[in-house]
Amino acid sequence: MTFQGYAATAPDRPLEPFEYDPGPLPPDEVEIDVDYCGMCHSDLSMALNEWGISSYPFIPGHEVVGRVAALGELVTHLKIGQKVGLGWRARSCMVCPQCMTGNHHRCKNGSDTIVGRHGGFANKVRCQGPWAIPLPETVDPAKMGPMFCGGITVFNPLVLSNLSPMASVAVVGIGGLGHMALQFANAWGCEVTAFSTSPDKEAEAKQMGAHHFLNSRDEEALASAAGSFDLVLVAVNVMLNWDAYVGLLKPGGRLHIVGAIPKFEAAWFPLLASELTIGGSPIGPPALASQMLSFCGRHQVAPLVEEIPMSKVNDALEHLKSGKARYRIVLKNDF
Amino acid sequence: MTFQGYAATAPDRPLEPFEYDPGPLPPDEVEIDVDYCGMCHSDLSMALNEWGISSYPFIPGHEVVGRVAALGELVTHLKIGQKVGLGWRARSCMVCPQCMTGNHHRCKNGSDTIVGRHGGFANKVRCQGPWAIPLPETVDPAKMGPMFCGGITVFNPLVLSNLSPMASVAVVGIGGLGHMALQFANAWGCEVTAFSTSPDKEAEAKQMGAHHFLNSRDEEALASAAGSFDLVLVAVNVMLNWDAYVGLLKPGGRLHIVGAIPKFEAAWFPLLASELTIGGSPIGPPALASQMLSFCGRHQVAPLVEEIPMSKVNDALEHLKSGKARYRIVLKNDF
Repeated sequence: MTFQGYAATAPDRPLEPFEYDPGPLPPDEVEIDVDYCGMCHSDLSMALNEWGISSYPFIPGHEVVGRVAALGELVTHLKIGQKVGLGWRARSCMVCPQCMTGNHHRCKNGSDTIVGRHGGFANKVRCQGPWAIPLPETVDPAKMGPMFCGGITVFNPLVLSNLSPMASVAVVGIGGLGHMALQFANAWGCEVTAFSTSPDKEAEAKQMGAHHFLNSRDEEALASAAGSFDLVLVAVNVMLNWDAYVGLLKPGGRLHIVGAIPKFEAAWFPLLASELTIGGSPIGPPALASQMLSFCGRHQVAPLVEEIPMSKVNDALEHLKSGKARYRIVLKNDF
Repeated sequence: MTFQGYAATAPDRPLEPFEYDPGPLPPDEVEIDVDYCGMCHSDLSMALNEWGISSYPFIPGHEVVGRVAALGELVTHLKIGQKVGLGWRARSCMVCPQCMTGNHHRCKNGSDTIVGRHGGFANKVRCQGPWAIPLPETVDPAKMGPMFCGGITVFNPLVLSNLSPMASVAVVGIGGLGHMALQFANAWGCEVTAFSTSPDKEAEAKQMGAHHFLNSRDEEALASAAGSFDLVLVAVNVMLNWDAYVGLLKPGGRLHIVGAIPKFEAAWFPLLASELTIGGSPIGPPALASQMLSFCGRHQVAPLVEEIPMSKVNDALEHLKSGKARYRIVLKNDF
């Protein structure tokens, strides 16, 4: 049996149809019939080998929604045909202290869906059983793909911050991640402010749950918001004036950065004097992904997606590169 | 009535005997007969006007232990003669959101014991009622002065970190603050490692509760400790190789810096990938100071002090400047 996908054969090449033999199904893995696969900036970075860890031919795709097609002999908690999602992580060791305490996403001995493995821009994909997250009936499978990478990335910080529904939250960057963060923070019960360099996103940001909108290029507006937030969630991966963003926090507040910025640099005294915290996080644990999906169903949280047939994957990649996707591209399998 | 103290008349002057009239006792304040007063580096910085906020004549001293000598008419929860301590903070507004949620130390409208006020290198000192912290019978008043600034500064991070007794803690810098942090972390139930640039402190550090000692100038030792700690508590105020200290943390760990370093700078990816937190804090709230004192009594935690008569204050300051004080100087009132 072969899997069919779209692969880059080198960093500078468009994706091409590609078939591969996945070999026997490992006993602790499941095989998923891909229905949808979200498109994340990491897919592009990996296709271009920007992080130096890509191997070719390379099939991107790590925001999968599909149905269980086959079960390894050790996987007993899923059923054939069950709807599941798969994100950035495909395996973890299950025995290290992190795995054993429910923090499988921090496991140093895991593997990722598109690192040394073939991803979800394909008709089928595989992962370790616990990383195939069952979808509740309350969510729309066509939209949930982006939840498994971008969604959990902005949901986890709310938990890590021990965020109260009475808190005031700023979401910095209203793109693929930020537009989900606005919805989550609103559904969490918080007062939500969207920070964006695109003033034309104000109306949409407010539809997504922002109570306030702030143009982050407006230094006066930024200064007037000083001391206003319990949590500032940064969902961009560019360097900002971190001193100014630290200054946005209330005493005891937290600046949480999920973007892969090169470094963090700020004067220490304001952090010390106001008892502030700076945190970062990558995706989240699988148990939390399940809770996130229930939360999405209960609160009608879903990304705004542009659905594109998987056969048009190169057009979709160009659209992603253009920065005009609003807000997340999802490929629909048309193999 | 006049108060007698030791004051600097200018930044470059030794302290001199100085008398002042404190005026009528404000209705919400208490007057304390000073028995002991610890000596903190901040006293020196303020005497030298290093922070540009000193006013002269300037009486240092903000680690006071004494007895209530007089009560303002609104202060009903203390008794004349009761043993109390006073630290860096002398007042807070009591009505802002921080005060109203028990975080009086974060109040922006408070005042500090030696900023615009005369401190505790004197026979008497005053503060707002709630900032005079009653001493339990279980602690030795002669040693408790340093608890009210240095002690609470390193105790509060254990609480802010939500530290488990099962955690592994590094204390960086075994001086006035660090030697108290070792005792606290040990009594908290943790596995404790002392980091010091002075290998000759190893035996003492272990007496104070360190299970392990690491020479922080030994880069090999530092590298071999990578990924070992849930909490790294930095009690020095010099710039370190922050990337290396971030690298000491286990996934999910916290680097907490109580030193007034100029800035913090580190590569972000390790922080993000391992879900780390960086925090800072100043002293702590008065309610926590009371809990800290009970904890000290229960666990026999106390600073190692060199007791010097207050009349020898200039000798004591020289000793502090020399960096040879082990580990905290306490002046005994001999007015």
